[in-house]
Amino acid sequence: MKIVIDAFGGDYAPLEPIKGAVRAKSELGCEIALSGTEQIIRKTAADNGIDISGIEILDAQSVMTYDDEPKAVLKKKNDSSMAVGLKAVAAGEADVFISAGSTAALLMGSTFIVKRIKGVSRPALGAVLPGLNGHVLLMDCGANAECRPEMLKQFAFMGSLYMEKVLGVKTPRVGLLNNGTEDSKGLDLQKETNALLKEEKEINYVGNVEGRALGLSECDVVITDGFTGNIALKSIEGIGSAVGKKLKGAIKSSFTAKLGALLMKKQLKDFAKSLDYSEVGGAPFIGLKAPVIKAHGNSTEKMFFSAAKQAVQWAGSGMIEALEEKFSGGDDKEEKE
Amino acid sequence: MKIVIDAFGGDYAPLEPIKGAVRAKSELGCEIALSGTEQIIRKTAADNGIDISGIEILDAQSVMTYDDEPKAVLKKKNDSSMAVGLKAVAAGEADVFISAGSTAALLMGSTFIVKRIKGVSRPALGAVLPGLNGHVLLMDCGANAECRPEMLKQFAFMGSLYMEKVLGVKTPRVGLLNNGTEDSKGLDLQKETNALLKEEKEINYVGNVEGRALGLSECDVVITDGFTGNIALKSIEGIGSAVGKKLKGAIKSSFTAKLGALLMKKQLKDFAKSLDYSEVGGAPFIGLKAPVIKAHGNSTEKMFFSAAKQAVQWAGSGMIEALEEKFSGGDDKEEKE
Repeated sequence: MKIVIDAFGGDYAPLEPIKGAVRAKSELGCEIALSGTEQIIRKTAADNGIDISGIEILDAQSVMTYDDEPKAVLKKKNDSSMAVGLKAVAAGEADVFISAGSTAALLMGSTFIVKRIKGVSRPALGAVLPGLNGHVLLMDCGANAECRPEMLKQFAFMGSLYMEKVLGVKTPRVGLLNNGTEDSKGLDLQKETNALLKEEKEINYVGNVEGRALGLSECDVVITDGFTGNIALKSIEGIGSAVGKKLKGAIKSSFTAKLGALLMKKQLKDFAKSLDYSEVGGAPFIGLKAPVIKAHGNSTEKMFFSAAKQAVQWAGSGMIEALEEKFSGGDDKEEKE
Repeated sequence: MKIVIDAFGGDYAPLEPIKGAVRAKSELGCEIALSGTEQIIRKTAADNGIDISGIEILDAQSVMTYDDEPKAVLKKKNDSSMAVGLKAVAAGEADVFISAGSTAALLMGSTFIVKRIKGVSRPALGAVLPGLNGHVLLMDCGANAECRPEMLKQFAFMGSLYMEKVLGVKTPRVGLLNNGTEDSKGLDLQKETNALLKEEKEINYVGNVEGRALGLSECDVVITDGFTGNIALKSIEGIGSAVGKKLKGAIKSSFTAKLGALLMKKQLKDFAKSLDYSEVGGAPFIGLKAPVIKAHGNSTEKMFFSAAKQAVQWAGSGMIEALEEKFSGGDDKEEKE
């Protein structure tokens, strides 16, 4: 198995992707490649005393920046670290691509270079959130702002399969994100999707769920359109960040509090860990012919390593094959916006 | 000033509403009335040794339950504690109504009994959230699932006025909840609303904001449709509840941790308080001829008291008059669903 990590994606590139790649190589026992300008990668590694022997470099001449139009990944910047990594996966020379670069560019590049599985209308971006009693997969959380009921139905199937095959959740409970649990709730999209999902026998559909389901792990997969999913995800990230800052402020506010925090060190660490999305890896982009993982923009060594661990599980799970079989019967029509 | 509290709304009715009313009467120096079946209110007070002298009772023969259709408040249950309270406010016999009963019924009852301010298309439900650096008003958070840009523009004005007049925030920063900050982001609703709000000179519009803005207090008022607002609010409530439970679990997990928590007692209490929506009162239903406050379904004495404090500030703020003046020029057309 070979994993490609974009050495030039994210706020701390190329150093942190390089460090993550080295750790993944040594701990996961799989082949690792870095995509990006070879000269800079080698110099950064040397300057920081990092031994990158055994790591393949897929040389790339440019970098996708946040100022680039997402579609630049396909033409003007088709020699970027992102495009080169995606092309390696598309050609079957590697199994998974991980990038902390621009989400919009990665979604566009993945869709047009790696391509969607036949029968999948639209790939969707999932976010694995730390809930009260286990992880919750929220999808779509940003790839498709506008969705039709049939798309959400596919997301339900894809999300359920991801939780089962990659995260090992047996018969995952799938809920539809809505403004109430009754069947009468929601806009047309939710009402029609709820009716469709109730008929679906292959997934464990538990009905409409409210936003609370995400934090409280009321189900394992929460399905929604990309606009609503983005709002829910960012709302949760914001409150998580505020909570962390408030707690740190509380601890620092007095000597006694600091002493108390010292006694609670292990528990506070576990508490922080339970809220930490960096433990989970990245956001899986599901529905493509090969796994692509969007790592958080502020990814560090640890987060690239977590994403690589997730990549190994995903690529070895047989999920892509299962999706290909599931959707092979359907007509291969891509949803147009 | 007279505040009416629904004695039969919420999970802990009638005892907690009664206790909240007594505390409000003694601490806020305003008239307090309880709406509900007089006999039960008097017996509950007597059984619990509570002196309710000086508190007016607006006798009501029935109670709106969660099994009742919301519209029952207008006809079949127009003698309920909720309907009786609303009618007192509509008749000018009281200034504010507070209820922890069914949100849908309260919204319907308020709209048809208290009635909207002339020129306001749709009243909206606000939620005052505890952010990192001060409160954030999210609205609409559930009254109008589907909205048009002109409605959101009115919400922006109403929300800004509420934060300024009731919570004392000078020139509140107003943001539009969206899936990104660029002008190109969002569905048609967000794009059109963003363009409308940019032209509005009377409010301090800061542009599109992401869900993170809520927890991180990136602005003071966050405007959205009632569907999206409900998802954001419930997502935040769920994660808040999960965080509280996780932290309690961490503290209880060992003797040393308990000791540490004891040393941090004041700080942990302040931390919990900073996350606690019960400090803020209830959700203001804005755009009606008189203030109506939806208290949380699990409201206790403290939360009814907070809502009463909020009611006093609101009723004395001159906000309703300012809204009447602002919208008096417009045509009085109610939005139809």
